[in-house]
Amino acid sequence: MAQPPEQDLLLAAAFVSDAQYNRNIPFKTSPEAVRLYYLYNHWMMRAATYFFIFLNLSLAMFEEPAVYPLPFLVTSVLEVLCLLVFLGRLAHFATVTQHSVFWKDTKNICIMVAILLSLTDLAIYGVLRVYSVRSIRWSRIVRPIFLINFAESRQIRRAFRSIRNTLPEITYVFLLFMFSLLMFSLMALKLFGERNLQTAEGLPYFRNYLEIVFDLYVLVTTANSPDVMMPAFDFSSWYALFFIAFVIVNTYIFMSLFLAVVYNNYKKHLKNEIRKLAYMKRRKMIEAFNLLKEEEGEQLVVREARWKQLVKLVAPDISNSHRELLLRISDDEQKGFVDKKSFVQLADLLNIQVVTLRLRRHPLARWAPRVYGSAASRLLRGLVRHRAFVWAYDAIILINAIFIALDEETPYISYAEWVFLALYVSEILLKVYTYEPRAFFGKTQFWNWFDTLIIFAALTATILNATLKSSKCSFSSLHAWRIVDSIQRFRVIMNTLINIVPTMLTFGGLTLVVYCVFAIIGMELFHGKIQFFPADSSAPHALACGNAALRDSLFARGKYCKNNFNDFASSFIVLMELTVVNQWHVFANAFANVTVQPAKLYFIAFHIVMVIIIVNIFVSFILEAFFVEYSLEKSEVETAIEQKIQELGMGVQEDELRDEQLLDNMESDEHELEGEGGTKAQPRGLVFKIASKRYRTVDALLQRMFEAEIPLEDEGPSFEEILNLSPSAAVPRNPSLESAA
Amino acid sequence: MAQPPEQDLLLAAAFVSDAQYNRNIPFKTSPEAVRLYYLYNHWMMRAATYFFIFLNLSLAMFEEPAVYPLPFLVTSVLEVLCLLVFLGRLAHFATVTQHSVFWKDTKNICIMVAILLSLTDLAIYGVLRVYSVRSIRWSRIVRPIFLINFAESRQIRRAFRSIRNTLPEITYVFLLFMFSLLMFSLMALKLFGERNLQTAEGLPYFRNYLEIVFDLYVLVTTANSPDVMMPAFDFSSWYALFFIAFVIVNTYIFMSLFLAVVYNNYKKHLKNEIRKLAYMKRRKMIEAFNLLKEEEGEQLVVREARWKQLVKLVAPDISNSHRELLLRISDDEQKGFVDKKSFVQLADLLNIQVVTLRLRRHPLARWAPRVYGSAASRLLRGLVRHRAFVWAYDAIILINAIFIALDEETPYISYAEWVFLALYVSEILLKVYTYEPRAFFGKTQFWNWFDTLIIFAALTATILNATLKSSKCSFSSLHAWRIVDSIQRFRVIMNTLINIVPTMLTFGGLTLVVYCVFAIIGMELFHGKIQFFPADSSAPHALACGNAALRDSLFARGKYCKNNFNDFASSFIVLMELTVVNQWHVFANAFANVTVQPAKLYFIAFHIVMVIIIVNIFVSFILEAFFVEYSLEKSEVETAIEQKIQELGMGVQEDELRDEQLLDNMESDEHELEGEGGTKAQPRGLVFKIASKRYRTVDALLQRMFEAEIPLEDEGPSFEEILNLSPSAAVPRNPSLESAA
Repeated sequence: MAQPPEQDLLLAAAFVSDAQYNRNIPFKTSPEAVRLYYLYNHWMMRAATYFFIFLNLSLAMFEEPAVYPLPFLVTSVLEVLCLLVFLGRLAHFATVTQHSVFWKDTKNICIMVAILLSLTDLAIYGVLRVYSVRSIRWSRIVRPIFLINFAESRQIRRAFRSIRNTLPEITYVFLLFMFSLLMFSLMALKLFGERNLQTAEGLPYFRNYLEIVFDLYVLVTTANSPDVMMPAFDFSSWYALFFIAFVIVNTYIFMSLFLAVVYNNYKKHLKNEIRKLAYMKRRKMIEAFNLLKEEEGEQLVVREARWKQLVKLVAPDISNSHRELLLRISDDEQKGFVDKKSFVQLADLLNIQVVTLRLRRHPLARWAPRVYGSAASRLLRGLVRHRAFVWAYDAIILINAIFIALDEETPYISYAEWVFLALYVSEILLKVYTYEPRAFFGKTQFWNWFDTLIIFAALTATILNATLKSSKCSFSSLHAWRIVDSIQRFRVIMNTLINIVPTMLTFGGLTLVVYCVFAIIGMELFHGKIQFFPADSSAPHALACGNAALRDSLFARGKYCKNNFNDFASSFIVLMELTVVNQWHVFANAFANVTVQPAKLYFIAFHIVMVIIIVNIFVSFILEAFFVEYSLEKSEVETAIEQKIQELGMGVQEDELRDEQLLDNMESDEHELEGEGGTKAQPRGLVFKIASKRYRTVDALLQRMFEAEIPLEDEGPSFEEILNLSPSAAVPRNPSLESAA
Repeated sequence: MAQPPEQDLLLAAAFVSDAQYNRNIPFKTSPEAVRLYYLYNHWMMRAATYFFIFLNLSLAMFEEPAVYPLPFLVTSVLEVLCLLVFLGRLAHFATVTQHSVFWKDTKNICIMVAILLSLTDLAIYGVLRVYSVRSIRWSRIVRPIFLINFAESRQIRRAFRSIRNTLPEITYVFLLFMFSLLMFSLMALKLFGERNLQTAEGLPYFRNYLEIVFDLYVLVTTANSPDVMMPAFDFSSWYALFFIAFVIVNTYIFMSLFLAVVYNNYKKHLKNEIRKLAYMKRRKMIEAFNLLKEEEGEQLVVREARWKQLVKLVAPDISNSHRELLLRISDDEQKGFVDKKSFVQLADLLNIQVVTLRLRRHPLARWAPRVYGSAASRLLRGLVRHRAFVWAYDAIILINAIFIALDEETPYISYAEWVFLALYVSEILLKVYTYEPRAFFGKTQFWNWFDTLIIFAALTATILNATLKSSKCSFSSLHAWRIVDSIQRFRVIMNTLINIVPTMLTFGGLTLVVYCVFAIIGMELFHGKIQFFPADSSAPHALACGNAALRDSLFARGKYCKNNFNDFASSFIVLMELTVVNQWHVFANAFANVTVQPAKLYFIAFHIVMVIIIVNIFVSFILEAFFVEYSLEKSEVETAIEQKIQELGMGVQEDELRDEQLLDNMESDEHELEGEGGTKAQPRGLVFKIASKRYRTVDALLQRMFEAEIPLEDEGPSFEEILNLSPSAAVPRNPSLESAA
């Protein structure tokens, strides 16, 4: 190690930070590169990148056809600005990584090509515009590439990789499915084609092969379910058997097969990705250790002072006492150094959100100890702490909800609202009286904050309503959500639901990409073909959505005119409705009627991409999240670190105790601490607790489960080997055997 | 063992037979009981029971309201007959089992109560009928109990057990879901209730809380997807966000959670049931062994003669050579006896369908060896055997399918049909020329039979069409199904699909039970309220389905009048359409409008039972089937028995070789056998092969996977312990550890 120790420390901190956040950027280890790398990972830089990515995507709102029109000059200047920022970010990345790595990465090539394409298209479009030639801004389709390919969007890229990996198998099932569809259509043509039947709209029924294929494809999605059958069924009841067979084979069996294939691949690749991440993290921590190690007797260790410097660098905003806690865990025999085995855990330690609670007496107990300590006050506090208090308020909320539902403008009910509000306010006051206020409104007391805010909002709204004599909305209904968290039995379900929120963002990103691409294509294809007119409009064809081709169509009769591709926002709404599937054939038929019949392919393509692939991946993800959560709930796996925190007697876990008990605990802890004279490693009146188990996302949980299987001595395969791990090997039963080879 | 050996043998055979078919009836071991037990399990007795169960269920077709009306006297006599048969079957069962066991079994109590209820109801109804008082045949609802509770319907009972076990967890998710639904409804009421909006039909929009709850429940099923949103969306685009949030939370997340909960429970309980079955089988085989064992040196064994007697009793219809094969496998060192370890496998051995192929030369080779052996003939046969021959015909079938699709009554195409038929006939002739005809049309050559039949049907149809000058239908399209099986890549999918067929019957039974119950209730509630009139009818309200309340309703406009509860068959069709979900709210609204609004609860209840529970179980089942099949396809687990058959050099497995190669193989085998002088244990010119791997249903596969983990020495827990195995223990990683305790 020829570098001065200061620079070693910086490099080590970069490794630890990467391990902590699961970043996998192969940066150069020269001091300047490390410094640039710090800048690259700075939250401001990342936030700015995201800002410009979303700005670039949202330009579609302001460009022709616009929701909020802006002059072409403004949008093009903004676009060039975005592209310059992306180029700058990429250049920054290039200085941080080695050139060989940079040019081998398809992500970077993709971004460069996308920037080039966008600029070229913009230039061509601008020039043509000067000569008043209308052309298509085709490069808008490449904009989502920036969202996918910037290094921060690891999750979205993983989702896309997952889709790509699933494609071959999906294709086989899809071919079989198409085959079945075509055969059934042929049968339908033979069975019904010459019976001269008519649909409910008076159109010919099952005459044309391609139309039959489309109708039966729609039936697979169940969107035209009884309608498509009725003419044949009215003719003879026995024909229903054809449709029953069709639905069983195609809707139930094939659609489930799609889910099975997608889910199977999802599981397989998820495990592989998790394994890669776990090994990567281990590797980086070992690199960091090797930079900082010193000899201590026979061992190689990191000394306490150096360790503290490192932690200060990696996590500058954690408190001194928190750092002391981490040190106590890493060096539990207080030998003044941290060995390799404990050092490797540092990344996980930093990920556990530990909350420092300052134990304080209630202010009233300090200001008026006699009154606060009196028998009546004790009884009151005892009542508030009792479970029945929570139940009573759950009941009140329920009754309130029923009252709101009955809301018939009768005076009794508006009086009742005041009673409920008074009850809620007294609840808050009683709680603040019983619990220490600063603990009650602590950082992690989400529900307390939530309750209080809701109640004050409701109070304000009710007072405003009473003074303005107009009752528009009541917020107290939101309050009822609290019941859910208080019932133990719902915990697994709620935990699952809350744990999936972060990953929901990934699916949000994925959906955004698909929607953007389809919206831009859709606007080019269908822009202006269908118009929305207010109910009292006198425009020609106002009832037929401004297009004579739609007269008397299901689309016009359903008053769907506002579902069009006339701007970016409307397109998104249409695509959302297509994702929900129902009535999508009405949309497909309408847009095909106002343009050309092959336009239906656009809708079929969207159905395949969005419903068959992405929604199934989403369902797979929820299934897996539930199973992981469920198996953990049963076995209550605790990591070694969480155990250590508990052993040290400094942490209590939130989920095991109800809030009020927790606060009780703290108070009694305080007395004990005073009796014992406190533990050395922690300042007086401080208690650490693990903020929440809710940081356990599916990824984190799976990673932890896998890490529990790797022995601490095991350093895992080398970087290159990790990157080439194949999914077929999956997670080995005994990973040490494989990696030792 | 005080019984004479003959009776021991009978008892042992009963045990082996039970193990083979996974029957779990605790019969008495006295000689008369065993004889009665044989009668009880006779296929005629079981077929008769099923016949009367279905007769009893189908009585609903002939009773008021009838599809095919029969006099009350006839149906009631038939019903009494059915009930007597059930009583007889139950009495027979009572003589076979011990009384303590019989009376502890809720199945039997259920059947007795059901018989009693049916008879009482029939009597009351009959008496009231004599006095012309109209009453309800409420006992018709208990009829499905016979389908569920007769001992033969083990699979259906298991499915019902699975549902019962899933109920508690489903309930929690359902409560949360209902809570979310109610809260969203409340928000909707506050948001839209006072805006005076109207639906596309001009009805008030989102005014009444209960109607909002129903509308949003329908939205969860996506059935009214854009319609319910349009009035609010037309008013302001921002309101779309409410519906998007609603769909994401309730349709995507909650509906996936239902699937997750159902699937999780399904997996858990499936494993437990499989474990029980595997231990039960082992136990019974040991009982049988203990009855027949004799001392041989230090070992306890079953001697060859006794073993043969046993197999003759258990499987009287297998050939001598097949029995010799089984003996060779059980006694592979030919010591003249079978030891315990091998004896226990007998039940599995009997379950493997082994086909005895008699090796023969082609008749032409015998009659005209010179011509058949000539170079031209060899070349021809080589061509037919070549892969390209199959591909060529696949291509021809595809082209034919395209021609059929283009079918435009042009003369060219009808000529083309003759060409295709000629090609198909020549294909069959060429194959019969190349392969030995009796082997080609062997029992297991399903596709050969299928092809030939289809081609002859098509030939007949085309000739008839040509002579009668009317082309109605062409069967040749069915032929195209063959492509599917010939493409290797589709094998996993096709195997999954074919393997699930037997279990599909279970779901058929389950669906039948639910449909029967709901159809009978539906007929009582909605009978005659909605009428179907032919298109040219002049009846009053013919366009409003004979009910003024439906004038201008979506139901009447969609021409859904034939979807009614006027008879058993129609009810089934309606319930099928409700299962497919789309437009179910139109049905619910229509039937509520012609009766009372709470009638909607009937439709909601059906949705919960059928779609949320049973369809999800069906999807779980397909997922699991796919995963099991997929994991086997990868690792190609072969059981010890299949390996032994292969080692003995007498079996070749179908799936590894294409049909033509198989037949090649046989021919060359024949020569080898002649050279060697044949193996002792098998007659000349005979080859055994495992008929098909397709007997591997999910159950059988899982059972085999579990059995592979139990050591052969392990006798498993006792009968009582087996029955009380809890699902939470699931399949132990190392079952020997647990069961040894």
